[in-house]
Amino acid sequence: MNFSVIRKTLGALLVFEAIFFLVPAITAVCYGEWYELFIFLICIGICGGLGGLCVLPKVKNKNMYAKEGFVIVALSWVVMSLFGALPLLLTGTADSFIDALFETVSGFTTTGASIFTGEQIDGMAKSLLMWRSFTHWVGGMGVLVFVMAFLPLSGAQNMHMMKAESPGPIVSKLVPKVRQTAFILYAIYSVMTVAEFIMLLCGGMTVFEALHTAFATAGTGGFAFSSKGMAYGPYIQIVLTVFMLLFSINFTSYYLLLCGKPKEALTEEVRTFIIIVFTAITAISLNVHFMGNFEGKGSFADTLRQSAFYVASIVSTTGFGIEVDFSLWPQLSIGILMLLMFTGGCAGSTCGGMKLSRWIILSKGGAHEVGRLLHPKQVRKIMMDGRVVEHEVVRSVNAYLVAFILIFCTSILLISFDPLVQGDFTTAFTSVATTLNNVGPGVGEVVGPMGNFAGFTDFSKVVYMFDMLAGRLEIFPMLVLFTPATWRR
Amino acid sequence: MNFSVIRKTLGALLVFEAIFFLVPAITAVCYGEWYELFIFLICIGICGGLGGLCVLPKVKNKNMYAKEGFVIVALSWVVMSLFGALPLLLTGTADSFIDALFETVSGFTTTGASIFTGEQIDGMAKSLLMWRSFTHWVGGMGVLVFVMAFLPLSGAQNMHMMKAESPGPIVSKLVPKVRQTAFILYAIYSVMTVAEFIMLLCGGMTVFEALHTAFATAGTGGFAFSSKGMAYGPYIQIVLTVFMLLFSINFTSYYLLLCGKPKEALTEEVRTFIIIVFTAITAISLNVHFMGNFEGKGSFADTLRQSAFYVASIVSTTGFGIEVDFSLWPQLSIGILMLLMFTGGCAGSTCGGMKLSRWIILSKGGAHEVGRLLHPKQVRKIMMDGRVVEHEVVRSVNAYLVAFILIFCTSILLISFDPLVQGDFTTAFTSVATTLNNVGPGVGEVVGPMGNFAGFTDFSKVVYMFDMLAGRLEIFPMLVLFTPATWRR
Repeated sequence: MNFSVIRKTLGALLVFEAIFFLVPAITAVCYGEWYELFIFLICIGICGGLGGLCVLPKVKNKNMYAKEGFVIVALSWVVMSLFGALPLLLTGTADSFIDALFETVSGFTTTGASIFTGEQIDGMAKSLLMWRSFTHWVGGMGVLVFVMAFLPLSGAQNMHMMKAESPGPIVSKLVPKVRQTAFILYAIYSVMTVAEFIMLLCGGMTVFEALHTAFATAGTGGFAFSSKGMAYGPYIQIVLTVFMLLFSINFTSYYLLLCGKPKEALTEEVRTFIIIVFTAITAISLNVHFMGNFEGKGSFADTLRQSAFYVASIVSTTGFGIEVDFSLWPQLSIGILMLLMFTGGCAGSTCGGMKLSRWIILSKGGAHEVGRLLHPKQVRKIMMDGRVVEHEVVRSVNAYLVAFILIFCTSILLISFDPLVQGDFTTAFTSVATTLNNVGPGVGEVVGPMGNFAGFTDFSKVVYMFDMLAGRLEIFPMLVLFTPATWRR
Repeated sequence: MNFSVIRKTLGALLVFEAIFFLVPAITAVCYGEWYELFIFLICIGICGGLGGLCVLPKVKNKNMYAKEGFVIVALSWVVMSLFGALPLLLTGTADSFIDALFETVSGFTTTGASIFTGEQIDGMAKSLLMWRSFTHWVGGMGVLVFVMAFLPLSGAQNMHMMKAESPGPIVSKLVPKVRQTAFILYAIYSVMTVAEFIMLLCGGMTVFEALHTAFATAGTGGFAFSSKGMAYGPYIQIVLTVFMLLFSINFTSYYLLLCGKPKEALTEEVRTFIIIVFTAITAISLNVHFMGNFEGKGSFADTLRQSAFYVASIVSTTGFGIEVDFSLWPQLSIGILMLLMFTGGCAGSTCGGMKLSRWIILSKGGAHEVGRLLHPKQVRKIMMDGRVVEHEVVRSVNAYLVAFILIFCTSILLISFDPLVQGDFTTAFTSVATTLNNVGPGVGEVVGPMGNFAGFTDFSKVVYMFDMLAGRLEIFPMLVLFTPATWRR
């Protein structure tokens, strides 16, 4: 294990975090929140100072292997969250360090599950809200991808870190150089965020509200700036629906579109995503309209809009809520939404879940096996977008599924100690599903769109934090971090 | 597709079913249930006659491939259930054909989920109860395995059918000849059933009760003969606990024991099974004793006995219930029991679930993948009991997991139309889990140990029946049956 490379990268990360703190600091200045400004300046000092100390010593041996890549990624997210929790803790907004950390992990991993009640959020300083939301934006595309775009690192270093942090089973570079790839990704990301910001402004949101919401949508996070959620009227809801879906599509596709290759941009995964979204919206709006029976049910047009909103909110794993609580919908619609939590959007987007491409590879593997039973001697390969999916990828996707299931089950057992889930399997199941898939809200009173995670014990919160990190980093970096063999000489 | 071989095998099966009907017919004679006897004689006539007609014409082409093996197995179970439902239907005991079929499928697949209330079971004719229980015994070891033990079939025919019907990822013949293997399996099975029968007699059960319970335990089915369940006192409960566990162990291990090879008998799967059972019993009894808070909680000795009973009942997928409803236990214990539903016992036993050996192979695959991330160039193989697990087996187990998940999710969506599961995710989830894993009872009021499946719509019942068959036949035969390519020339 090359500890000096790890130290240096983590140091650089802290320096970047100090820079990130400028965003809420400026917000504090705009709103005259001088106490919060003071706290943010302290945080900048701590992160900048400590980061600088770690970066300064020279690194002799720059060699890095896959192992170091995974460890750096896992530790980066832990360190980022630990220091990112400082503002909530130092201002006394969060009751305890665990609560502050939970909120920050939920932010960076773009989960959007909160320990604050609606009232607490309404009373929170604007600068703190902005920090919460900005963590979504930073975490969405990946914090190390950001570091890579601006720091001169060696090629091997870049590739290993990119591989470990990027979502999806196959990591492809847009351009030969990893650094340029990272830069292009962040450029597309920024342009789309600005576009949403402007469209939200047009809908009557204030600059603060629009910026907050744009950050939370872009990262597919889902923190809200008020207890009213996104109950802003049809225009805003439609804008959000469109952008949540756009941020769920592989960013490579946008790059290919920009390069004038629309055919290549419409990959098998993107096509499947479009089909699934349309099918889900149709099924849910019909189900809710004809079989739903709850207070506040509107016309078919309303139902269609609300269905589309929730499908986009869940499949993108953003987790925004509107005036209707989907927990009141018929079981079929809830079931479809719960499945969408697990599929997630496309690989290489900012959303969570297992990613569609994994499910495509898994289903093709299953279909192949049935075909093999019928014709045992036939040799066929799993194809995607006209290319053979390599054996290593198939194996890794299968292992991913198994690891996912094991973490899922273990987490449910661990949080079963919590008094809040006694006799309530729905809460136990959906709270783990929503954190491991980085969605945010679950189903039921406790963790539904109108609930929050405040009531859980600290032990449960630690489990949820692990799940959020494992979900965002796609499990393997966390497993490598906790494997004894990693640390053996 | 060689239709004449299929016809002939199904015909033989019907003749055997006519013979099976003799068991309840004799019961009817013993208890003077003349009306039921009349019905059973009619059923014998129908099955014997129809079966004979199908068997008589000569088959010219005896060639059979894997494809035919799967189709025969799938169709056999459907046909067996269709005709096995006749007694319940003709006596008017079941309200409809769907209900009668549900109960029979539940019997043959050794699920033990019932559409009858406790009162209805108390009032049912003894001969009908015996038939229900006997379907468990026949289904437990596999009806085609039984046919094979007594009919002269060609070697290829035997092997394909054995492969398709036997539970577990790897089918090993005990002796070179499949027919002899089938015979030995049924011999061990019968001896163990008789042993349990005698021990139950010693506990004060009547001959009928002991025989009924022995059949239901041996097949790990779980139908009860009275509404009181197994609330028979500690002795009977302990006997049942021991035998449920014994029937969950690979029968090959017993054969190896008989051959004087105790070391080979204690395979990795059996060792894991023992560890899991002991851990689960310890965890649940501690959890229930120290954290449980419900009516009827007894001393630690009582809790230990009850925990052991339910662990055995669920891990063997028998599904017997006792005086305590485990739905009232703390969430951790319920969670452990729910996980045990999915693991099931050992491959090559009579129990359901995914089978431990599959989970062992899957976990080893996952661990290998993490190892590969650390040392990308290392080549390692998955080993079990000192032998390399072949690549085909690993692939097939992975495909099994994916198919299992897809069927599970689709089933939950389909039964979500049912009025009974509205707003009740626990019932939706556990009813599918309990049928697909051939357990019997789920969690909650509707499908818990004290509930039944009567209230569901016919559509939901059909879904559950498919799940029970898919679970017992380990999915692939059912998938092959419904794949269009199977039927194409």
